[in-house]
Amino acid sequence: MAERVVRHFQEELDHLKTRLLEMGGLAEDRVRAAVESLVSRDPALVEEVLAGDGPINQLHIEIDSRCFTLLALHQPMAVDLRAIVAAVKINTDLERVGDLAINIAEAATRYLKHPPVKELIDIPRMATIAQTMLRDALDAYVRRDTNMAQAVLNEDDALDALKTQVFRELLTYMLSDPSKIEPALDLILISRHLERIGDHATNVAEDVIFMVTARDVRHHTGDSGPAVQ
Amino acid sequence: MAERVVRHFQEELDHLKTRLLEMGGLAEDRVRAAVESLVSRDPALVEEVLAGDGPINQLHIEIDSRCFTLLALHQPMAVDLRAIVAAVKINTDLERVGDLAINIAEAATRYLKHPPVKELIDIPRMATIAQTMLRDALDAYVRRDTNMAQAVLNEDDALDALKTQVFRELLTYMLSDPSKIEPALDLILISRHLERIGDHATNVAEDVIFMVTARDVRHHTGDSGPAVQ
Repeated sequence: MAERVVRHFQEELDHLKTRLLEMGGLAEDRVRAAVESLVSRDPALVEEVLAGDGPINQLHIEIDSRCFTLLALHQPMAVDLRAIVAAVKINTDLERVGDLAINIAEAATRYLKHPPVKELIDIPRMATIAQTMLRDALDAYVRRDTNMAQAVLNEDDALDALKTQVFRELLTYMLSDPSKIEPALDLILISRHLERIGDHATNVAEDVIFMVTARDVRHHTGDSGPAVQ
Repeated sequence: MAERVVRHFQEELDHLKTRLLEMGGLAEDRVRAAVESLVSRDPALVEEVLAGDGPINQLHIEIDSRCFTLLALHQPMAVDLRAIVAAVKINTDLERVGDLAINIAEAATRYLKHPPVKELIDIPRMATIAQTMLRDALDAYVRRDTNMAQAVLNEDDALDALKTQVFRELLTYMLSDPSKIEPALDLILISRHLERIGDHATNVAEDVIFMVTARDVRHHTGDSGPAVQ
């Protein structure tokens, strides 16, 4: 590639990264707002989350379009190629996180119709872990940092343990008081949505490791996994 | 591209499609087996599903690798480029469907420890719809058939309606008999897993429409959505 074309490609790739970080920031904000609306029992904030997926959806389409343009015009190879395909996947993951914020807000709408089941401790904790995983996974993408990506993968167990704890505790409430069944069900669903946000962060982290090393860490194939290209 | 290279590319692309169909068939089989194990209360079949994700995971890695090779060696343009990026995404969706079969089997394991909550009618119906959506979406991909893809998108409402019906009915059982709370909870989770399988089929159908038309049908941008490339 001529030097000018290479520079243009790197600029475009940097721009793509910036937009992905913005998208990640939006997704994270929406998750935070959704959980905040639940904890502070704020119906106006719930509505804001339900109505506010325009910007993230627009960015989703824009980022996809940038990726296709980069692939078509610059025909990148090796790590650059993997970086752009990873961006397509990460973009999808972030859009799903935005959808999950809506799912949380929908469950919150129903939850707020009942008296509180209990003080919410573990669900905000799950939200914080999931958001941090997401932010770290995106930072790992931008920095091409596999150690950081691996740290995200390790965090997933904490989220899983909290999900199980939330489930058991809420089940106890449901069994002892039928009036808590409906709202506790919504809290269980919300904890599942948060678990899935962690799963999306995990996907991003796996994409980062593949992008950098060309080795697939999914399905626990470990270091002996097949190299690609 | 020289004629021989073009032919080689088309052969490789056809091979990729065949492998994606195989992956779809595996994913579908696993969902069918998971729901069958629940309905027929067959712990051996549950175990089979829980232990049987090896082939689908292997195919997942292989298909990803094929896509990267096609992108790197042939530098495809326009619809071929979109077909391969779509394959990367569809591959991810199918792998998730395989994971959801495991999630269903995990819930079935717990469910089978209790007496049946009720005769299962709507959950097998949901499974059939989700499997059909998945098969049709993959056929639409192979045939590059946007009408068929659009039909898959329309099916999603039926799945959603059944999910709501299942939820309401099971809630009634939970409220009237505390001993049904735990198993009914697992049925609700299973219905959510099936809904998500429908979501994955929807993703595939959207990818097909984008691949063929270069127009984004996500986020209800409709026909006025931005064309890419």
